[in-house]
Amino acid sequence: MNRTHEWNELAAQLCVDSIRASTAAGSGHPTSSMSAAHLAAVLFADHLRFDVDDPKNLGNDRFVLSKGHASPLLYSALKAIGAISDEQLLSFRKLGSPLQGHPAPVEGMPWVDVATGSLGQGLPIGLGMGLAMRLDDLPGRVWVLIGDSEIVEGSVWEAMANASFHGVRNLIGILDMNRLGQRGPTMLQWDGPRYAERARAFGWRAIEVDGHDVAAIDAAYREAEDGSGPTLIVARTVKGHGVSFLANAEGWHGKALDEQQAKQAIEELGGERHITITPPKPEHIERPAQRRVAFALPTYDDDVATRKAFGESLAALADLEDVVVLDGEVANSTHTEDFQKVAPERFFEMYIGEQGMVGAAVGLQALGKMPFAATFGAFLTRAYDFVRMAAISRATLRLCGSHAGVSIGEDGPSQMALEDFAMMRAVHGSAVLYPADGNATAHLVGEMLKWRGISYMRTTREKTRILYRPEEEFPVGGSKTLRSSAEDRATIVGAGVTVFEALKAADSLAEDGIWVRVIDAYSVKPIDGRTLREALAATGLVVAVEDHWIEGGLGDAVLEALADDGQEFTGRVVKLGVTEMPGSGTPQELRDWAGISAAKIADSIRRALKPA
Amino acid sequence: MNRTHEWNELAAQLCVDSIRASTAAGSGHPTSSMSAAHLAAVLFADHLRFDVDDPKNLGNDRFVLSKGHASPLLYSALKAIGAISDEQLLSFRKLGSPLQGHPAPVEGMPWVDVATGSLGQGLPIGLGMGLAMRLDDLPGRVWVLIGDSEIVEGSVWEAMANASFHGVRNLIGILDMNRLGQRGPTMLQWDGPRYAERARAFGWRAIEVDGHDVAAIDAAYREAEDGSGPTLIVARTVKGHGVSFLANAEGWHGKALDEQQAKQAIEELGGERHITITPPKPEHIERPAQRRVAFALPTYDDDVATRKAFGESLAALADLEDVVVLDGEVANSTHTEDFQKVAPERFFEMYIGEQGMVGAAVGLQALGKMPFAATFGAFLTRAYDFVRMAAISRATLRLCGSHAGVSIGEDGPSQMALEDFAMMRAVHGSAVLYPADGNATAHLVGEMLKWRGISYMRTTREKTRILYRPEEEFPVGGSKTLRSSAEDRATIVGAGVTVFEALKAADSLAEDGIWVRVIDAYSVKPIDGRTLREALAATGLVVAVEDHWIEGGLGDAVLEALADDGQEFTGRVVKLGVTEMPGSGTPQELRDWAGISAAKIADSIRRALKPA
Repeated sequence: MNRTHEWNELAAQLCVDSIRASTAAGSGHPTSSMSAAHLAAVLFADHLRFDVDDPKNLGNDRFVLSKGHASPLLYSALKAIGAISDEQLLSFRKLGSPLQGHPAPVEGMPWVDVATGSLGQGLPIGLGMGLAMRLDDLPGRVWVLIGDSEIVEGSVWEAMANASFHGVRNLIGILDMNRLGQRGPTMLQWDGPRYAERARAFGWRAIEVDGHDVAAIDAAYREAEDGSGPTLIVARTVKGHGVSFLANAEGWHGKALDEQQAKQAIEELGGERHITITPPKPEHIERPAQRRVAFALPTYDDDVATRKAFGESLAALADLEDVVVLDGEVANSTHTEDFQKVAPERFFEMYIGEQGMVGAAVGLQALGKMPFAATFGAFLTRAYDFVRMAAISRATLRLCGSHAGVSIGEDGPSQMALEDFAMMRAVHGSAVLYPADGNATAHLVGEMLKWRGISYMRTTREKTRILYRPEEEFPVGGSKTLRSSAEDRATIVGAGVTVFEALKAADSLAEDGIWVRVIDAYSVKPIDGRTLREALAATGLVVAVEDHWIEGGLGDAVLEALADDGQEFTGRVVKLGVTEMPGSGTPQELRDWAGISAAKIADSIRRALKPA
Repeated sequence: MNRTHEWNELAAQLCVDSIRASTAAGSGHPTSSMSAAHLAAVLFADHLRFDVDDPKNLGNDRFVLSKGHASPLLYSALKAIGAISDEQLLSFRKLGSPLQGHPAPVEGMPWVDVATGSLGQGLPIGLGMGLAMRLDDLPGRVWVLIGDSEIVEGSVWEAMANASFHGVRNLIGILDMNRLGQRGPTMLQWDGPRYAERARAFGWRAIEVDGHDVAAIDAAYREAEDGSGPTLIVARTVKGHGVSFLANAEGWHGKALDEQQAKQAIEELGGERHITITPPKPEHIERPAQRRVAFALPTYDDDVATRKAFGESLAALADLEDVVVLDGEVANSTHTEDFQKVAPERFFEMYIGEQGMVGAAVGLQALGKMPFAATFGAFLTRAYDFVRMAAISRATLRLCGSHAGVSIGEDGPSQMALEDFAMMRAVHGSAVLYPADGNATAHLVGEMLKWRGISYMRTTREKTRILYRPEEEFPVGGSKTLRSSAEDRATIVGAGVTVFEALKAADSLAEDGIWVRVIDAYSVKPIDGRTLREALAATGLVVAVEDHWIEGGLGDAVLEALADDGQEFTGRVVKLGVTEMPGSGTPQELRDWAGISAAKIADSIRRALKPA
């Protein structure tokens, strides 16, 4: 009885504070916060095992606000548990405040593990956290607060399917079924039984509850947290609950109340309160120091596909116990199966659901794992929003895309990654790598292991010959100059498969007495600007060749480096890349068709050097 | 009885031809074709109403091979119905053949409406076709052959949810439940009841059937095609069915048989056949000539947000009866609601499921509609794979992304499109547009209406002031020079919001006697290279300013144009864009923080012009 009163008082405070914060900011989502206030009050007061002074304690439960626009609710809860002050609460959405419009794990916000705000991402991330907990035999639970608009996102259903398949026992989704989306009623409105039926069909337990009845919520949480399987709590709620002019009213999504409205609303809610609570105390669990393990990356002296070298390199890292690998049901193509063979318990088959794969990787790294995730490069486009958000999460993710470019040949354009460089260059803080041979691949996998942020490696389907000795270093941001002389009249910059075409072009030009420099720009981002600028200065003509659309890839990276932030630029640059839609053919036929074969590169240089 | 024999004979032929085609190619997916041979035989012989001589007949049913890797099956069926010859069948996967590794609607392949091969896209596209048929009151049905690996893709469930919600009656999914994915068993293997349960929970009728029992298949199709609602046929099948060493065998995915294996397999299947069939005759329905309608795009003489001008422009197009609009539950943000108000029957609320939205748009345009689809620019990243595939489908799609850049302000980075130019530039044949004011927006919506291929417009959240008279033209590929003099010592190139910052910077520099040219590059792709090159030649310094990551956007497009395919380049180029992860703040605070405000642009130019 008393407890009921306390929960309700706390819920009222969360509503009041959500209104105060958003009114002070002049924007935000108070009504989306209010629908879930009782759900959050009972959770933070009595179920979320969480040490506010040690948010990274491995014994903590995790809370993911998938409906990130309800950030005022989260920040109000953080105030109630003593994480932030009332004054900080009122810095919401201001420049420099860690209380951003949507939650992000920025400095000053250690209680948030991952960024949310692009809908439908919380559950895949929560699944990854659940997998991490299971790997380390941690006692925590993962609570994900989900909106009823975002549940249409397919990524939610990828996570639903994978969570039951992988038998994650500690994942609890709380569906805030408040009936109203941004612009009106949601698809299923208050049809709780239908949501429950969908969850059950996907192998979840479902519990329906009145989301403003704190005792019922408490009972539902008790059932959900028994560890018997993934559970969706379908909570019927009212958007703007507790305030006469907001409750279940359309037209209030994402609107802050003005001062007068806020005053009235706060009065209706019983005024300001400053209750503090302490969530249930978790066990204290230290992250074990990672054993220092010597690992030997593979070396190659014979032709090998870089995708195979990638898989073998992963396998070599398996002794590092925090390394985990995810794949989208193509492990025999990406060769992550080589890792699976040696560390099956740390390999996660995410089936054909690339969003769910990357989301789970974000969740795994949030709990200290070192994930690699791989699929065909073309299909990483499916997960671009997750990669973008991972950067906002300050996540360290290692992505690999195999089967790149027209060089995959017969399968045709649907399977050809031709936009992966453009996509991955435009990710904040990313490294974009494209090794040409097996030894470069192995070294660059080692570099990915060290890179903080998002790194992407493109691998090649075909075998390529060995260009580099095993002991060569391949720092991120570097390049290799493979041909160079004082007589060079042009420079060819390639990466991956086009390095071999560049070398053949150089040979063919040499037969005509035309000497050209050849650079392997294995690090497409950051790119080795200094070497490129020296080459332009020395040779006057740079030809960048890529098995990628002409836009946004290696050629653009080369131009950016040559422009060098406004330094004087003199010379000529030709970009060769794919400019027409490919079809099927052999790899060599298609490279020639696309104008990126050795013959076409040589032609291009002969043309450029011809006196006008 | 006879019919059963005929269907089985046809199915055997489809298996034999799938093997022959893939063996001739040396690659391909025979076993994935064989599992669905009986399903296809009964469909093409007796249910798919299809005029092979008039594949664009609006009375036709539509068949979408969502599991595009089973292309040998499709091509074998096309041979059986007399669309292609046996000789053409054997050109499978060869350079220049319209029989690509995965189906695409290329020249010589008019029987294919859309490209497939990236899994999980057929059902969203089929939904769009179903919506188009309903709009035009067409009698056709849409049959989508789905693989049991791809059904994990979230996009499938977005389409499932939307198909039942939108009450599409003529959409039939055929699930080829052959138990084996690329690398082993699928998630649910042969658990047909579970698939059926999921479909039913999503509002579909489900019918379970033995996928090799032609009479049962026929009965299931009869039930499914009664028009009473979307139906999933869950067909239990055997991968590699009919051949001893292939049936239900692992390790055979995506592998062609060698000559000897093919010989044995064809023998087991009873040898080559050359049965021809005629599918059921559809009603002949001509596309009605679109009424010539005069429409007047809106004009503006006062501040307006370009997103609002976009919505009002769409509304002005509503008299064009083929124009349809889709939105991802943010119509009051993108302002597609203005179209919805005047043409509600041609507005499709696809809820928060951007993949499903773009997929449906592809399906709608395949049946002659002119779709516009809109959401926040950031969330179009969710649909990048669908946009990529739409280009392979040779689709004409008009996409709009609102709420771009740090200029959205307080909502923070999860809502900020900062990679949309990079993403959309790297789409084959795309136009990428970013109008600065209301009048430019209206004109560019008119240009999008005419553009063949994929066009993308970025709109701005804030109001912007009017720069252009209503009668100005804005051709794709053009630009506007807003300031120019013989004394110009630098050129600022902006687009959208940065045009206004550029103008203010020019004013501020003019006070110091520094004259600069200002160019509005409203067409980011194709970009107006000639004007940019003239500006560089005249002023020696170009500063490109964009509210976008520094990679892949306007700055890269400017550099590409200036490099001009190897012409001599002399001058200096500075790119200003977003280089650090933004947080919340006001739009102006964030532009200044990012270094793309008027003050920062002016600083940059002053620094660049300072004698060294």
